[in-house]
Amino acid sequence: MSDYTKMWTDLGLDNDNHNALLEALGGAYQSIYMAQEKRAKGMEYFDFVMSEAHGLRIKELCDEKEAGKKIIGSFCVFVPEEMVLAAGCTAVGLCSGADFAQEEVEQVIPRNTCSLIKSFFGFKLGKVCPYMEVADLIVGENTCDGKKKSFETFKDLVPNFYQMDLPQTKTPESKQMLKQEFMKFIQQLEEMTGNKVTFEGLKQGIASVNAKRKALHRLSSLRAANPSPVSGLDALLINQVSFLDNIDRFTENVNAICDHIELDIKENKGVKEANLPRIVISGCPMAVPNWKLPSVIESSGAVIVGEESCIGERGLRNLTDDSATTLDGLIDAIVDRYFQIDCAVFTPNNERVDHIQEMVEKYNADGVIHYGLQFCQPYIMESFSVEKQLEKKGIPVLRIETDYSQEDLGQLSTRVEAFVEMIK
Amino acid sequence: MSDYTKMWTDLGLDNDNHNALLEALGGAYQSIYMAQEKRAKGMEYFDFVMSEAHGLRIKELCDEKEAGKKIIGSFCVFVPEEMVLAAGCTAVGLCSGADFAQEEVEQVIPRNTCSLIKSFFGFKLGKVCPYMEVADLIVGENTCDGKKKSFETFKDLVPNFYQMDLPQTKTPESKQMLKQEFMKFIQQLEEMTGNKVTFEGLKQGIASVNAKRKALHRLSSLRAANPSPVSGLDALLINQVSFLDNIDRFTENVNAICDHIELDIKENKGVKEANLPRIVISGCPMAVPNWKLPSVIESSGAVIVGEESCIGERGLRNLTDDSATTLDGLIDAIVDRYFQIDCAVFTPNNERVDHIQEMVEKYNADGVIHYGLQFCQPYIMESFSVEKQLEKKGIPVLRIETDYSQEDLGQLSTRVEAFVEMIK
Repeated sequence: MSDYTKMWTDLGLDNDNHNALLEALGGAYQSIYMAQEKRAKGMEYFDFVMSEAHGLRIKELCDEKEAGKKIIGSFCVFVPEEMVLAAGCTAVGLCSGADFAQEEVEQVIPRNTCSLIKSFFGFKLGKVCPYMEVADLIVGENTCDGKKKSFETFKDLVPNFYQMDLPQTKTPESKQMLKQEFMKFIQQLEEMTGNKVTFEGLKQGIASVNAKRKALHRLSSLRAANPSPVSGLDALLINQVSFLDNIDRFTENVNAICDHIELDIKENKGVKEANLPRIVISGCPMAVPNWKLPSVIESSGAVIVGEESCIGERGLRNLTDDSATTLDGLIDAIVDRYFQIDCAVFTPNNERVDHIQEMVEKYNADGVIHYGLQFCQPYIMESFSVEKQLEKKGIPVLRIETDYSQEDLGQLSTRVEAFVEMIK
Repeated sequence: MSDYTKMWTDLGLDNDNHNALLEALGGAYQSIYMAQEKRAKGMEYFDFVMSEAHGLRIKELCDEKEAGKKIIGSFCVFVPEEMVLAAGCTAVGLCSGADFAQEEVEQVIPRNTCSLIKSFFGFKLGKVCPYMEVADLIVGENTCDGKKKSFETFKDLVPNFYQMDLPQTKTPESKQMLKQEFMKFIQQLEEMTGNKVTFEGLKQGIASVNAKRKALHRLSSLRAANPSPVSGLDALLINQVSFLDNIDRFTENVNAICDHIELDIKENKGVKEANLPRIVISGCPMAVPNWKLPSVIESSGAVIVGEESCIGERGLRNLTDDSATTLDGLIDAIVDRYFQIDCAVFTPNNERVDHIQEMVEKYNADGVIHYGLQFCQPYIMESFSVEKQLEKKGIPVLRIETDYSQEDLGQLSTRVEAFVEMIK
């Protein structure tokens, strides 16, 4: 393993903090990921990316910067990667999956803030996220109140911050507003890079992002098999890696693991026993290394067959139509595609429960575990009606509200085990 | 006192619950309001309105309905009363200042929801708010995540619900959006009443609402006097009553109490000792009967000289320009006026801290107590930067986070007393 200490120091990371973080992450990865009894062939690539997530991958991004590329960091699937690519930039997701420097964080934002937001503040204040430090621009968005308002403080902690406004409804006027915001975003990218977003560039950006989505759709479909050919933990990991890795190499490796999995399915091989209780997780996103709930679920004798989440199908569901023949037509297609994202910040957001139900049917799930981050008002509010509507259709639901701490592990296990026992 | 039992039953109130509520409110009013040592002459009117808030005032509204008027209930100062009046309707604020039926509430919305939202669910589920029951239309708005998402559930509990979308930023595009929403609201009012909103009608609506605002501005200005000629509790009550009472009669009575107060000031009379520590309260709205924090403050030997709140100056600050000569011009003036409201749901919302500072100067305040309702993310997030900026200007700030329960009374008193001692 190479020594990246100099690179990390040059980026401005706090080496003591960062080493402590890497050690904790490595330990968690060993005990959660490497301890899985069987894994799909092809996971080695994703293990490798994870092991080099703060090393080789950051080196690559530094090299890209050296060559004049700009790195765009974001926290949300509403930031259109197609446009980032078309402007000759690289998109990365920013660290927000673990508690860090919580005491410092609570000096600047309220204690009663969701773990995801506290996490990115902690990674910044503790100087431990190389993606945040390597980014030339950090893009925030007006989704929930928590992010919208905390960005007012966060923007002063980073050199270049851009805030994207978003609609709260799905009316034609809201769609028009989304287009305006995407046009402003293109302008911002063009200004900072000196590159023009052209028809050809955007078409190519769409091709890359659609290829990634198609590969991940392929992986999702294979999870309908019984016995499960890939664990839920591993499938989540692949989704998480999609926010960090080089997009084209990532797509290639997702297709490669799908090739392996297809062979296994033909031979009726799985990584789990057949006929385990099958769970769809639905709700808040799970950023690296937020593996707590999936790990509890798969340790309780169930298998996760789908994630209705931003890091999962909500973020990936639709392709961007690439058939337009003008730049404006492609932009409209991107607006069409993103406007369909059924995030709980929208009101009403009835499509989401339909999508959950479709996933339950497609992956033959026996139940849904709704994952709400404590203090995430949009998803926790919505979980009440999601539960009510799914149960009306005969789909059992367990509503979980948790954070990134390990304190409720015992209680979580008890509740999940009881649920799994019930749906068996 | 008349017996309104039949009216309440006809409205669909639960008489046992409602009697229990009235008893609790009556007790609180006695111990908080009537126990004040001295009060401004003219408060008798507002005491009377409060004593008849569920009686005579509801009878008046029922009579208006009988005569063909529609009653429009709302929760937010973004719902333009000028338009409600222009459509020949009456505007009322809905009950949201006390805990009720909390166990039932937590069956339909999350426990970690702010007290104000839980309160209006509780009043509805417990069937104890005659304003909610008498209203022909209830208007919700997309302000915070909590309201926006909980209205998805609330709308099914009431016969006629209308949801107004609102922008999250103060850009020209957002202002255009606000205008669109206000136009849609006019259309809604016209459709439900069969009345047309005309230039003359809107001009008259603006006149009524401006007259109310002017009267309340006059009252606010008088609070600069030392000794204080009116208690903070009483001034808050007057503001609270403005959401319930007949608008023109209310305005008349605010002006009447101002006449009394002006005489007292001339004679250097006050309801409090001279030179008490002077506090501006800033933050979340305090709906009837949410008097906990003001009562704690004024019991601790300080006097409240202003409320930077929706039930206070944030809701009242600007008049609507009435000089336009066309209907569209008047609508634009209304949009201009409401677009200036510095609610914490906007990002950025820098004007708010300027306004707090102006109030501190105008009313010679010694410090600011920031009132945040627990789980109200917009105001609690913003309180961090408000505190930082005010303290930079040498203005002491105490940040309070509380709910509607009485459990933290002891702790609140201790903190407020220490703050008052400090700023003496």
